[in-house]
Amino acid sequence: MQTLNELLAAAAAEKNTVLTGAQRNAALMAMADALEAHMDDILAANRLDMEHARGTCSTVMLDRLALSADRIRSMAKGVRDVAALPDPVGRVLKTNVLPNGLVVEKKAAPMGVVAIIYESRPNVTSDAAALAVKSGNVCVLRSGHQALGSAAAIVAALRDGLTRAGLSPDRVLLVEDPSRAAAQALMTATGKVDLLIPRGGAGLIRTCVENATVPCIETGTGICHIYVDDSADIEKALNIIENAKTSRPSVCNAEEVLLVHKDIAPVFLPKLYDRLVTDRAAAGKQAVEFRVDEAAGRIIPGTPASDVDFDTEFLDYILAVGIVDSVEEAIAHIGAHSTHHSDAILTQNDAHAQAFTDRVDSAAVYVNASTRFTDGGEFGLGCEMGISTQKLHARGPMGLEELTTYKYIVRGDGHTR
Amino acid sequence: MQTLNELLAAAAAEKNTVLTGAQRNAALMAMADALEAHMDDILAANRLDMEHARGTCSTVMLDRLALSADRIRSMAKGVRDVAALPDPVGRVLKTNVLPNGLVVEKKAAPMGVVAIIYESRPNVTSDAAALAVKSGNVCVLRSGHQALGSAAAIVAALRDGLTRAGLSPDRVLLVEDPSRAAAQALMTATGKVDLLIPRGGAGLIRTCVENATVPCIETGTGICHIYVDDSADIEKALNIIENAKTSRPSVCNAEEVLLVHKDIAPVFLPKLYDRLVTDRAAAGKQAVEFRVDEAAGRIIPGTPASDVDFDTEFLDYILAVGIVDSVEEAIAHIGAHSTHHSDAILTQNDAHAQAFTDRVDSAAVYVNASTRFTDGGEFGLGCEMGISTQKLHARGPMGLEELTTYKYIVRGDGHTR
Repeated sequence: MQTLNELLAAAAAEKNTVLTGAQRNAALMAMADALEAHMDDILAANRLDMEHARGTCSTVMLDRLALSADRIRSMAKGVRDVAALPDPVGRVLKTNVLPNGLVVEKKAAPMGVVAIIYESRPNVTSDAAALAVKSGNVCVLRSGHQALGSAAAIVAALRDGLTRAGLSPDRVLLVEDPSRAAAQALMTATGKVDLLIPRGGAGLIRTCVENATVPCIETGTGICHIYVDDSADIEKALNIIENAKTSRPSVCNAEEVLLVHKDIAPVFLPKLYDRLVTDRAAAGKQAVEFRVDEAAGRIIPGTPASDVDFDTEFLDYILAVGIVDSVEEAIAHIGAHSTHHSDAILTQNDAHAQAFTDRVDSAAVYVNASTRFTDGGEFGLGCEMGISTQKLHARGPMGLEELTTYKYIVRGDGHTR
Repeated sequence: MQTLNELLAAAAAEKNTVLTGAQRNAALMAMADALEAHMDDILAANRLDMEHARGTCSTVMLDRLALSADRIRSMAKGVRDVAALPDPVGRVLKTNVLPNGLVVEKKAAPMGVVAIIYESRPNVTSDAAALAVKSGNVCVLRSGHQALGSAAAIVAALRDGLTRAGLSPDRVLLVEDPSRAAAQALMTATGKVDLLIPRGGAGLIRTCVENATVPCIETGTGICHIYVDDSADIEKALNIIENAKTSRPSVCNAEEVLLVHKDIAPVFLPKLYDRLVTDRAAAGKQAVEFRVDEAAGRIIPGTPASDVDFDTEFLDYILAVGIVDSVEEAIAHIGAHSTHHSDAILTQNDAHAQAFTDRVDSAAVYVNASTRFTDGGEFGLGCEMGISTQKLHARGPMGLEELTTYKYIVRGDGHTR
C-alpha cells in the first residue's frame, strides 16, 4: 500500500506537468472507455464491498453503494460529458495594458492538487476525477471505507485510461489507507493539498472544516427556507412547497422550514395541509409531518415545534412551520437560522422580493421558484463538484470554473518601478 | 469600553442595512471631510501615542506611527479617491436564462462583516475603512496597540462622517480592547466575521492564519525570486534587479532571491556586483550584501549562503544568489522555496518564458519586469487591501472586487423541479 506521503509526493510531481486542453480531453475519453473495459473488475470489487456492508448498513446506504453495468455506463457517459464542456483553464479573465506598457493578464489556472473526501457513492470517484482532470488539477480521492474496494477498481480503470492516453496515471490518486489518521493527515497536508472538498453529510463536512489546515470549501448543509408572503399566489405556492419538500427530501436543497405571513396563513395553511398530508396519504404517498410553532398550531394540526426544529436539516418528510408578521421578520429569522444555502420568497410584491433578494445572505435566493434548483446542472454550469455554503472563492454550485484559481502574468521589456 | 461581543452585535445589526452606491459614496465624502475637521483631535491623540512609543520603538517604527497635517490630508484624499472608483457591489457577473424560463443571475454582493487586524500605521485605519464602506461591508478594525489612540481618533472622525451623511456610525467599528484575548476572540468569532484580513508582518499573518476559525485571507509574505536566463538582456537584467532589490527593500514584492543560469553567470554576476555593491557604495548608497551559494561564490565575493538564506524574507539590502543549470531547475527551486507571491524570469527565449509563466505557481509571474509592480494601484485596480498569497477567492492584489462575494438570484413564476 502506498503511504499518504508517497501519494502526495506523486501528486506534487504530477502537478508540475501542464496538460493542454486537448490532452485533458483525450485523457477523459480514454478514462471513460477504460471504465467500460474494466467493468467486470469493478462489478466484482463492488460485490465484495456489498457483501461486507450487508447487515451493517441501511437499505438506502446499500442502494447508494451498489453498482450495475448500467450505472458504470452512466459513469462513463458522465466522464465523456465533462470532456465536452468548455475548457476552464487558461481563460483570460482580464487584460490591462498599463500606461507604462506593462501587459497585466489575469488568467485562469488550475488549483494544483485537489483532495476530495467523500462517502460511499462509488460514482463520486469517477465524477470527481473527471472534473479535476478537466480543470487541470491532480486529484487525491479519499472514499468512504465501505466503498473502498469499488473506488480502487474504478481508480485502477481511470489510471489505465490515463496511461493509454500517453499520460502519467498519477493525475488520479486514491488514498488506500482507510484509517482516520490518514484522513487527518490529508486534511493537514499544508502546502501539499491546494484545495480540499468534502462531499457528504453534515458530520463529514464538519470534521473537514474543523480539522483542515489546508484550504477547504464548506459544502452542502442546507436548512432551506421558503417564505410565503401575504401577496403570494396560493396555487403556485402549494406546488412549489410540495416540490421543495417532497421531490427528494434527502438532498441539501430540499426545504426544511416554511415561514408564512400571518395574514395569508389562515387561508394558506389548511390548503397546504390538505396537499401535503391528506392528498398524499390518499394517493399512497408518504405524508409530510408538520412541526408547528404556536401560531401555526392554532390553524393546522401538527407536532408542536421545539426550538431545535428550526435549526435542523431533517432530510426527511418533516417540515418546520412558523408564522411571521412581515417580510422583515422572515428575513431576520432566515438570517438567524439559515445555513446560507438556498432560501425562497413566494410573493407578488416587487418591493418584498427586492428586500428579500438584497438582504438574505445565502448562496441562492429565489423568487417564486423551488429551492430544489440549486444545482450545477440546473444553473447551466454543466456539472458540479458540490454546493459551497461559504462566501470565499466559490458560492453555490461549484462547476469547473470554481475548481480553478487565477494568476497574474505580467510581461514587460525591462520595466522597473 | 465596548466589549467585543457588543461590537460584533452592532456589526451584525448594521450588515442587514443595504446601502445604495450613492449612499456609500456620500458616506465616503463625509468621512473624508470629517478626517480634516477632526485634524486637531487626531494629531493630539497621535502625539500621545508617539510619546508612549518613544524609547520602546525603532526610528522606522516611530516614523510609521507619526501623523502630520499633510498625512491626514493625504488620508482624506485617499478616502475620496476610493469614492470615485466604480461600484463593486451589484455587478451582474453572469445571467443564464434557462430553457424552463428560470432567470439565474450571479450578482456581486458584500461579504458582510470584514475584520482587519493590522499594526501601527494609522493610515491603514482610514484606508481599510474606506475600502470596506465602498464595497458595502461593515468593518471591524483592530489596530496595533501602539497606534490605538490615533486609530480611536480616526475612527471617531469616520463615524462622525457617517452620522453626518445620515447613516449609522456602526459601519466602522474599532476594537478598543488591546489584549491578545480580544484579538483571539475576533479571529474565532465564527458566524460573526465573514472575512478576516491580516495586514502586517509575517508574525501577525501567521498568528491569524493559524488561529482564525473565521474565513481568513493570507496576505503578504513575499520571498520573491528573479531568474536570469542564459538568454537574458544583461543591461535590462541589471536595471530590473537593482530596482526589485533596492527601490524599497522592506516591502513584500521586493526581490529576495536571485537565480542565474550557469552559462550567463560568469559574465552577469561580476557586472551585478559592480552595480549593487561597488557603484552604490561609490554613490553613497547602501550596498547590497550577497549571500552566495558555492557556484556563485566562485564568481563573485559574498557571504556563503546557508540553506535558510533561500527561505528568508530579508526585507533588507540582502540578496541570496544561486546558480542553476536550466530554466527547469529554476522553476523547481521556486516551486520548493517560493511563498507564491511574485516571481520573475528575465529572458529573450519565448519557450522559456512560456514554461515559467505556465508552471511557476505564484500570484504574479513576470517576464522581463521587476517584481515590485505587484500592487493594486500598479495593476490598475485603483486601490488595494493587501496582496493575497493564497489561491482561494483572491490571489494577488485585493481591490474592491475581491472584497465582495456573489449570490445567485433566481426568479421564476412558480417553477418546480
